[in-house]
Parts: sequence; C-alpha cells; structure tokens
Amino acid sequence: MAAEKKIKVEACFSPYLYPVYKDEESVVVIIDILRATSAICTAFEHGAEKIIPVATIEEARSYKEKGFLVGAERDAVQVEGFDFGNSPFSYMGDNVKGKTIVITTTNGTQAIHAARDAYKVVVGSFLNIDALCRWLTEEKRNVLLLCSGWKNKFNLEDALFAGAVTENLRKYNHELELGDACLALEYLYELALQDPYKFLNHSSHKERLARLNLKKDIKYCLTPNQTKVIPILQGNALVNMIEVLS
Amino acid sequence: MAAEKKIKVEACFSPYLYPVYKDEESVVVIIDILRATSAICTAFEHGAEKIIPVATIEEARSYKEKGFLVGAERDAVQVEGFDFGNSPFSYMGDNVKGKTIVITTTNGTQAIHAARDAYKVVVGSFLNIDALCRWLTEEKRNVLLLCSGWKNKFNLEDALFAGAVTENLRKYNHELELGDACLALEYLYELALQDPYKFLNHSSHKERLARLNLKKDIKYCLTPNQTKVIPILQGNALVNMIEVLS
Repeated sequence: MAAEKKIKVEACFSPYLYPVYKDEESVVVIIDILRATSAICTAFEHGAEKIIPVATIEEARSYKEKGFLVGAERDAVQVEGFDFGNSPFSYMGDNVKGKTIVITTTNGTQAIHAARDAYKVVVGSFLNIDALCRWLTEEKRNVLLLCSGWKNKFNLEDALFAGAVTENLRKYNHELELGDACLALEYLYELALQDPYKFLNHSSHKERLARLNLKKDIKYCLTPNQTKVIPILQGNALVNMIEVLS
Repeated sequence: MAAEKKIKVEACFSPYLYPVYKDEESVVVIIDILRATSAICTAFEHGAEKIIPVATIEEARSYKEKGFLVGAERDAVQVEGFDFGNSPFSYMGDNVKGKTIVITTTNGTQAIHAARDAYKVVVGSFLNIDALCRWLTEEKRNVLLLCSGWKNKFNLEDALFAGAVTENLRKYNHELELGDACLALEYLYELALQDPYKFLNHSSHKERLARLNLKKDIKYCLTPNQTKVIPILQGNALVNMIEVLS
C-alpha cells in the first residue's frame, strides 16, 4: 500500500501576511473568534440562508440601500445606520431566519476577502470546532488557519483557536505535518486548555471588549460545539455547507 | 511623583509584517537566531569593526569585487565565491579582527533592511541577551522585537528568543505593557525554558540545519550570554555599541 500523503497544517497570524502563506490547493479556515466568525456560525445555526462579507463600509451601505439586512462593525462597535454589529447574540432571532445578510467587520471580513481565491474557504469558531475538524479530516487537503488578528496584528484568541484546531485535527490524523506556527500554537493551546477564559485575561482585544461590557459575548464565543454548521464561501457569499451537501 | 510612562513591548513575526507594527519611536531588535544575528554578535565579540548588511547577492558581489570580506548565505548554505556563510564559527578567527565585513542572508539582513528607518536598530541573539535587555531597560523606549522568520514565515527559534527577551525585560521593569504576540511568546518561553534545544526539536529550520550537519551551530546559537556586545545600526552599517559609547 502506498504511503498516504501527509496533510500539512499551517497558521497565518494576519490577513496582511496571507500572500506569504498563500497556497491555492489548501483549505483556508477563517478565524475571528471575537467576534465575526462566531457571529457568522451563530447566524447559520439560526437559519440564515446566505452571508455576503464585504470589505468596506461603503459596500455595506450600498447593500443597505438596496434593502438588505446589514451588519457593520468597526473597532468593536456597531456602525450607525446598520441592523447589526458583530455580537453573536444579535444573530439569533427570527429576524435572520431564511435571510441573506451582508456584513463588514474590522478584521474577519478582511481575512475572507484576502483568501477568496483559495481552493475552499470555510469559517471556524469554537462554536463549530468539532464539526469543522471532522470535515477538514475528511477533506484530506492541506489546511491553512488564517487568523484575522486585530488590524493586521497577531491576537491571542485567534491564535488560541488555531492551536485548538491543530490539536483537534491530531485526534483524527496522527500523521500531520505542522508548520512552525502550528507547533507553537499547539504548545500554547495545551497550556491554556484548563481555562481559556483566564488565559485570555490580558489579551488586548478582550480588554477592549470588556471595557464595552461584552463579557457575555466573550464567554459565548469561547464555548465549544454549539453548532454543526460549517459556513463555506461560494462565489461572493458564505452559505451553510450542510445545505450545499444535502 | 508623576507615574512613569509604561514601556510597550511588541513582537512582529515577519519582516513582511513590519509595516503593520512599524513605529518610528521604538527601538527595533533584529532577531535571526539560526544564524545571522548570532553570527553578527560573534563577529563583533571577535573584534570586527563594522558589518554592512545588504539585501541582495548582487550588492554583496559588488562589495566583494571592491575587495571587501563578504559573507553570503541562501537557504542555510554559503553562496559560492564568498568568504563566509552565516555559521558563527566562521566569524571567530583573526580574519575578522578590525575588519569591515559585508553580509547578506536569507532572512536576517532582510529584517534589518525593513527596519532601517526606526529610531534605533540593534541586533539580538541568545549570545548577547542579558547585555541587550539591560541596555533596552535603560533606554526607556518602546521595544519592537522583529523576528526574521524563514522566508517571511513565522519560525519557532526567533519566537522563542523574543519570549526570552520579554521575560528578561520583566526582571528589570515590572510595568511593561505587552502586546498580544509578546503575551503568547512569554507563555511559550516559560514552557520551553527547561530545555530549549528539545523544544525546538521539531522546528522546520532546525531540521533544515540538522540535515546540513550543523548541530554544533545550533547548540552554540542557543547558548546565552557569550558576549556583551550590542550591534547597532549607524547609517548603512552595524557597529559595536560599546565602542560608540566609549
């Protein structure tokens, strides 16, 4: 029997750095734990039909003028004149069911935009981590974990999640080939495992959100396995992969 | 007494990402543990007068034609037709004493080039870590730890050293403000502390060097405090800071 090809797993800490890691054959996982990718997973869990990520407020506004539901966040705050910010709790109501929603966020939608030409682009968060890792394992493709970071800088919560995915993938596949960033993240994740909430205590973005009284959001965004949806990019929109496959 | 300004310490994992972290008021520490910055510290410890880092092989060749001693490395191997590669052991002899040396390397000289307009640019390695951290503490300036990485990707040994510097700086200053990358690195360093050599065991570049039979180089590059020199960029050349100050 021929030896199976080793699956490579790599992590990129910033959309700005994506051109360096770019590999059109890989599955790219978009990560923006606090809070864009958590909100996107939540919206699909609650029945959203389609999410169109756009990079700029201007694009978001033009969709709004056409009558779309639009979420817009900058610097952790909902932009005036739009329907949502990026709190997952605002994507839970009946108002999202069956709807197409347009969103723009400080970091997450920029990462989706950067990776749009990859083989497949999916959305990850603690909320769907196990479903995501099972699917990635079945794909048998190289994986690039693309952390959105904060304004193109490294952030702790996205790195922590990338470490969690790396460890989770190992459960299903013992022959992973890890890039240096994933090696570091796996160590980090093992260290944080006992209490991720405490681990993130000093992170810059957590402090930013805590100042805005968003502790409930943070706690929710760090809770694993609340959904089995895997949002995937098709053309210019994210859709629920389960519905694509079924 | 007025509260002292908090010193910020941040780490950037790739020269490619430097524009995102750039802050002309910070002291930038260039890090390329295996092996450029270790070799540079070694050359000054052994009496080199000046080191001119250049980004390309072509520039290096034009210096060579003018009669300079020139070190050139690409992909961990000495480029044919030059005097040195980037093994620290080749910068220890009488041949470097009092000399101006030109060098170009895969990663380290690119990082120096990227940061050339910063307030001050100094060179760090385990070999000079304590002298470097004492000096940084006295400077009372924000610090940006610029990891050279491997071809613009994150690497483990540079990250480990950035973590070591962060921890070392804390000894002298309890009021540091750490960026998220430094928070992560400090955790990582604490984890690796007992045996950095073992910690790096799976790193991509260590494997690359081990294949080239450079274990002796790796061991030396991970040995703390072999010198008190701090190379600093003046114009287009690195010089020994101690000689500048005395």
